[in-house]
Amino acid sequence: MSGTIRVERAGHVATVWIDNVAKRNALNQAMWIAVGDAFTALGEDTDLRCIVIRGAGTEAFGSGADIEEFSTVRADLQQARAFARHTHRAFHAVRDCPVPVLAAIRGACVGGGLELASFCDMRICTPDSRFGVPVGRLGAVLAYPELEGLVRLVGANGALEVLLEGRVVGAAEALAKGMVNRVVDAAAFDTEIEAAVQRICAGAPLSARWHKKFIAKLRSGQPLTEAELEEGYACFETEDYVIGYRTFLSKEKPSFVGR
Amino acid sequence: MSGTIRVERAGHVATVWIDNVAKRNALNQAMWIAVGDAFTALGEDTDLRCIVIRGAGTEAFGSGADIEEFSTVRADLQQARAFARHTHRAFHAVRDCPVPVLAAIRGACVGGGLELASFCDMRICTPDSRFGVPVGRLGAVLAYPELEGLVRLVGANGALEVLLEGRVVGAAEALAKGMVNRVVDAAAFDTEIEAAVQRICAGAPLSARWHKKFIAKLRSGQPLTEAELEEGYACFETEDYVIGYRTFLSKEKPSFVGR
Amino acid sequence: MSGTIRVERAGHVATVWIDNVAKRNALNQAMWIAVGDAFTALGEDTDLRCIVIRGAGTEAFGSGADIEEFSTVRADLQQARAFARHTHRAFHAVRDCPVPVLAAIRGACVGGGLELASFCDMRICTPDSRFGVPVGRLGAVLAYPELEGLVRLVGANGALEVLLEGRVVGAAEALAKGMVNRVVDAAAFDTEIEAAVQRICAGAPLSARWHKKFIAKLRSGQPLTEAELEEGYACFETEDYVIGYRTFLSKEKPSFVGR
Repeated sequence: MSGTIRVERAGHVATVWIDNVAKRNALNQAMWIAVGDAFTALGEDTDLRCIVIRGAGTEAFGSGADIEEFSTVRADLQQARAFARHTHRAFHAVRDCPVPVLAAIRGACVGGGLELASFCDMRICTPDSRFGVPVGRLGAVLAYPELEGLVRLVGANGALEVLLEGRVVGAAEALAKGMVNRVVDAAAFDTEIEAAVQRICAGAPLSARWHKKFIAKLRSGQPLTEAELEEGYACFETEDYVIGYRTFLSKEKPSFVGR
Repeated sequence: MSGTIRVERAGHVATVWIDNVAKRNALNQAMWIAVGDAFTALGEDTDLRCIVIRGAGTEAFGSGADIEEFSTVRADLQQARAFARHTHRAFHAVRDCPVPVLAAIRGACVGGGLELASFCDMRICTPDSRFGVPVGRLGAVLAYPELEGLVRLVGANGALEVLLEGRVVGAAEALAKGMVNRVVDAAAFDTEIEAAVQRICAGAPLSARWHKKFIAKLRSGQPLTEAELEEGYACFETEDYVIGYRTFLSKEKPSFVGR
Repeated sequence: MSGTIRVERAGHVATVWIDNVAKRNALNQAMWIAVGDAFTALGEDTDLRCIVIRGAGTEAFGSGADIEEFSTVRADLQQARAFARHTHRAFHAVRDCPVPVLAAIRGACVGGGLELASFCDMRICTPDSRFGVPVGRLGAVLAYPELEGLVRLVGANGALEVLLEGRVVGAAEALAKGMVNRVVDAAAFDTEIEAAVQRICAGAPLSARWHKKFIAKLRSGQPLTEAELEEGYACFETEDYVIGYRTFLSKEKPSFVGR
């Protein structure tokens, strides 16, 4: 079975590659398991400040499930349920990763590829990118854990359009619908991704982790406890806060230490 | 009293016409009752795959309440409450209809017309369309069941702008605000609506119904039961799923059977 | 300490000026207290129909906290908590003000300035305006009450981008992200703000107050009581409703009396 998930590490930044170029980076069951493994491990690395997830080659970020394996791994209800455990674990590992995750998207970002991107914190794409979830054409349905991602990405109205029509849309329409944060020239893709990573890494690492955590809490709609409200002020006891406002006043560039 | 609601049926598709051309398709009490009746009946038709709702003529989708009847049917609190039962029944019949509902909008889509459109699953309009809810100019207020529609359409911030300023906006601004899914040329209107209907009908009918149901559940913010989570996999036991992935692999066009 | 909050009153309209021109309208602790005082007082004025909040000069609406005072008023956890009581009181006084509040934005609308704007009902800006919350560069974090404002303005995905990257964006991008309702030419700024105020004042004052109240309730996600549902029809017992529909039919301009 072709297809792997590769993780590269450089300084405070990790890159997760979806690599199944022969099949436009379709994700088979083994790859979904590997995505879950990779993000679970990266999430435990307290030294990490940013994760980029991207597709190998230039044709696709991820083009959904590998439908050729459906007749062996997703042929009936029982198999489908077992398969879903792996995809949902992968989605939740990305969603719950404490480190900022940026999806760098070129080409096809379809089906499971778009669902994966929807659980990232940001999405930047090239003009030739394409987005959609045409599962209705397969007679299939997004279960709730996948639907959660699509709805958080484009809202309930956006999700209805995506799923009922099953259209695959281009980058401009994806931008207008809020599927991506921005569209950058293909020639400048790597430079723009690197610039976004540098902006993320220019902030205090704990600020980013707290912001992710607090926004996830607000998304949940659950009431805030006293301890959670209080956590909003924990930053004022960090070294990085003192570094931050002093360098601001002296107009220097801060070097945050992550504590 | 002029004004009727007409239902046409062709194959798996029904079209509901708002027809009160002499009054730019204003909706009087009898028409609200008829909208509720029509969508309640259509919702029980298991063979239906798409409903289009549109206005007769080219001047309006629906231009709100027929204000000339206010002095007889909405003159005081008691009448207003009785009147609201009919409008809310109509809104809920559209909102809760298990079949995909597409609003095909030309011209005025104002007041109750916009509220009706807001409970549909998709909205496609022509460049001459106009959108707004200037009820504040009448000294009136959207009750919660109507407000629910406006907020689900444009969010709380969008609803504040629409209601506090009372402006009627054009198609481009409506698109930017998420009031419509897309704007199509007036000359191509029927063709584009038919193309959207065909895209909706190209998906498995049960997939569409499940997606609508699941998204409605997620909108509610209510916790999911085990049975609801499990329903996400019911598709894998349908004939249409087998038809779907097999025709995908053989690159044929699927003919879904709806079970 | 420089910087004041000034309130002007003209007819049914109040203007709140953020005035600290020497520091691009940075808001120090005394000014946050004064914002809370001003909106608390204005909120009790039943004769008021619209409040405009704007920055003195042309360079800024509000450019966030006055970081020069951090070493004396926000130097540690205890001070930060005390400081936050004032900013949160200010945000909540704006958010809970029963009168429509319009933020008129020129130039920098950054940090606490953007948070303040996020709790207003509408935001209109000039093309030279700039928006962002680069607190991560300070090693600081938005506590939940501030984050609430940013999330209601741009959603959870938008808030992640704003906070993780820390970019300051221009007016066009702010419009696309839903940070502002519209962008108007700088030369027409006062005229456009006045036109929006006049549109707001052209609606019945109680309609505006009820719409604000109902939308705030829907934002809360709390279930509606019978009494709240019933309040949706209270307008039909007002003088302004009778004035409203009668002048609509006679094609006259209504003069609402606010009861």
